[in-house]
Amino acid sequence: MNFELVTIGTELLLGHTVDTNGAELGRALAEAGARLVRRTTVGDDPEAIATAVADALDRTGRVITTGGLGPTRDDMSKRVVADLYGWPLRFEETIWDDIVARFRRMGRQPAAANRGQAEIPEGAEILPNRWGTAPGLWLDGPPGLVIMLPGVPREMRMLLTTEVIPRLADRTGGTVIRSMVVRTTSIAESAVAERLEGLEDELAPLTLAYLPSIEGVDLRLTAWNLAPGRAALLLNAAADRLETTLAGHAYGRGEDDLAVLVLDRLRRQGLRVAVAESCTGGLLGGRITEVPGSSEVFAGGVVSYDDRLKISMLDVPPALLSAHGAVSEPVAAAMAAGVAARLETPVAVSITGIAGPSGATDTKPLGTVWIGYWHQGVATAVHRVFPGSRAEVRARAVQFALHGLLDRLGRGP
Amino acid sequence: MNFELVTIGTELLLGHTVDTNGAELGRALAEAGARLVRRTTVGDDPEAIATAVADALDRTGRVITTGGLGPTRDDMSKRVVADLYGWPLRFEETIWDDIVARFRRMGRQPAAANRGQAEIPEGAEILPNRWGTAPGLWLDGPPGLVIMLPGVPREMRMLLTTEVIPRLADRTGGTVIRSMVVRTTSIAESAVAERLEGLEDELAPLTLAYLPSIEGVDLRLTAWNLAPGRAALLLNAAADRLETTLAGHAYGRGEDDLAVLVLDRLRRQGLRVAVAESCTGGLLGGRITEVPGSSEVFAGGVVSYDDRLKISMLDVPPALLSAHGAVSEPVAAAMAAGVAARLETPVAVSITGIAGPSGATDTKPLGTVWIGYWHQGVATAVHRVFPGSRAEVRARAVQFALHGLLDRLGRGP
Repeated sequence: MNFELVTIGTELLLGHTVDTNGAELGRALAEAGARLVRRTTVGDDPEAIATAVADALDRTGRVITTGGLGPTRDDMSKRVVADLYGWPLRFEETIWDDIVARFRRMGRQPAAANRGQAEIPEGAEILPNRWGTAPGLWLDGPPGLVIMLPGVPREMRMLLTTEVIPRLADRTGGTVIRSMVVRTTSIAESAVAERLEGLEDELAPLTLAYLPSIEGVDLRLTAWNLAPGRAALLLNAAADRLETTLAGHAYGRGEDDLAVLVLDRLRRQGLRVAVAESCTGGLLGGRITEVPGSSEVFAGGVVSYDDRLKISMLDVPPALLSAHGAVSEPVAAAMAAGVAARLETPVAVSITGIAGPSGATDTKPLGTVWIGYWHQGVATAVHRVFPGSRAEVRARAVQFALHGLLDRLGRGP
Repeated sequence: MNFELVTIGTELLLGHTVDTNGAELGRALAEAGARLVRRTTVGDDPEAIATAVADALDRTGRVITTGGLGPTRDDMSKRVVADLYGWPLRFEETIWDDIVARFRRMGRQPAAANRGQAEIPEGAEILPNRWGTAPGLWLDGPPGLVIMLPGVPREMRMLLTTEVIPRLADRTGGTVIRSMVVRTTSIAESAVAERLEGLEDELAPLTLAYLPSIEGVDLRLTAWNLAPGRAALLLNAAADRLETTLAGHAYGRGEDDLAVLVLDRLRRQGLRVAVAESCTGGLLGGRITEVPGSSEVFAGGVVSYDDRLKISMLDVPPALLSAHGAVSEPVAAAMAAGVAARLETPVAVSITGIAGPSGATDTKPLGTVWIGYWHQGVATAVHRVFPGSRAEVRARAVQFALHGLLDRLGRGP
């Protein structure tokens, strides 16, 4: 069952408001077994609204609109859509009574402009809105199905959940559209694609999408219009295959967060961790302490932004710094060992690198980062050259450091 | 000059990604005196892309597309749009060389799938993309103007700013839609509104919008379709009035960042700063070191997440901790003094608080944060109870700490 969405609002086109309703509707429809195939945004302009809704009805036959139901003079979508059905507007006493009662509860009186909100196209079903003044409307007739919802996110969401989805469930006969995400990191999108070559066709009827971000490449598997049990079975099997094929890079599913996974593993192993950060300036500690309860396993850290602090606070031998420079394997390893000793933790991670825009040399290009680990009494370090801006290099370094730690803990006792 | 936007991506329709590009493009076009009149989102489906772009060209004549330029086989929009112009794709050696060089800098090799990114429709102008592998495209021909941009927000933004807007500026004559933002912090939206009562009407023909966020309340003044000179004059005068009325809270304009302002002031005064963080876990250091060149004035810091580190790494007297608790005025002050002494800086900031979700007591509710300062040889501390989630409390604490430091440095020598 396909739908188009028409969102109405000049403020959306001017970019003063980010359209979150669209994403929310897409997710809710998919969950109900329906599919959003196109989204159109137009301003508060009767002609643009009329053509957008009429075109969507011609193409797809089912349309949801959001916005354009409020009391201000910007709002005219109800009249425009009623015209498409050839239905006149009728003043609905019961809705007006609700509006008056609602205002009275807030100690106020409705304005004359609110009377328009009680006007309903003949033949439309009313979707009661207990969270605001404008009811939703369900228009089912020869032109097709139009469901009109308010633009206020909370009202849209509540009407969607309580009124729209239950009605759709009656029509879809049991199938769902369901997705599962496999999260990977420390591997480029093109390298993922190479490893998955050939595999992709075997995933049918599931589809596969690549969602690259600074944190890594998420792989989204989607089952379209299947019975819920079969969808779950196929998705789990396919996710297992992706994880096997991308071993060493696939670290979780759905919303799994590397920091949460690392902290869980530390907790299970009864270990505590400390961090020593240079180019990331505290972001690794910040990322770890985003997780509630991190204090159980995170001791703290040293931000040794100034190289002298690598000596005074982390006991990095000055000779290492002068021989190899601050961004080097031995210094990264010594930072990890140093912070573990100072903070008395069995595990530590360090980051030292060149985040840019300046600081690059012939042998150490922009984005060069050394990550040090202290684990099981041994200090090691690995390096990468991360692409992107200063912010991206720093974010990628944090993600890479966490992934490396997860890896080491996994192979640990 | 009207435009339509076509954003391409099944993930947008499924609601897995919120479309922020649309809002950003709307703002940027308005700034350039052009207007976005419709936005359409379609999935990764050649026919849907083709009809969406063709319809938009028929209606409006000018179209910007985002998405569908990457290396995976999701991506087909380039081929589809080239077909609308009847232009074959041609492998462009220079683009391929750039891609190879970009990969080489990261110590990697492009995959076969990347070769498609070097294919360009005959007759299209190339918009060089130094921030990713897929160049933007400018197709100007009998069907109209199509500007194709990558979907990755940062690449989209950079190409828009460096390539698209300058070309558009040549085509629009006369009036502009222009905004100016006055940034405030450490004051509630309702308190801002109270102070500005009466003033708002006097700002006409400018409009005023409140944009509250975790960092504070931004006030956006907008001049609509005025000559650039008059718009600038009115905006500057109005921003001056807002700043006077909100003295002590208004700290900058536009994209001004508190960390940048603080670092500038330290640099001018020849001072260096250190930080000691508890509940923010490194976020203050992370925020300061976001600024390129921060190493000149930022020495580093200690993340004393575990209370024992407040003693061992920051020399906070154990008696203070046991008498007042870690979240208290004397401990915040001692942390600032301690980190300044250890890191040998004349200025220091400390943060210790209860970010939640647990840890609150009867006398110290969730969100209680003490901020300590070491400045001119004196340790002081102030406290606030910040509203919101763990993430919000932490972000607000960092912003508040920076604002307090700016304030203290301003009154310094």
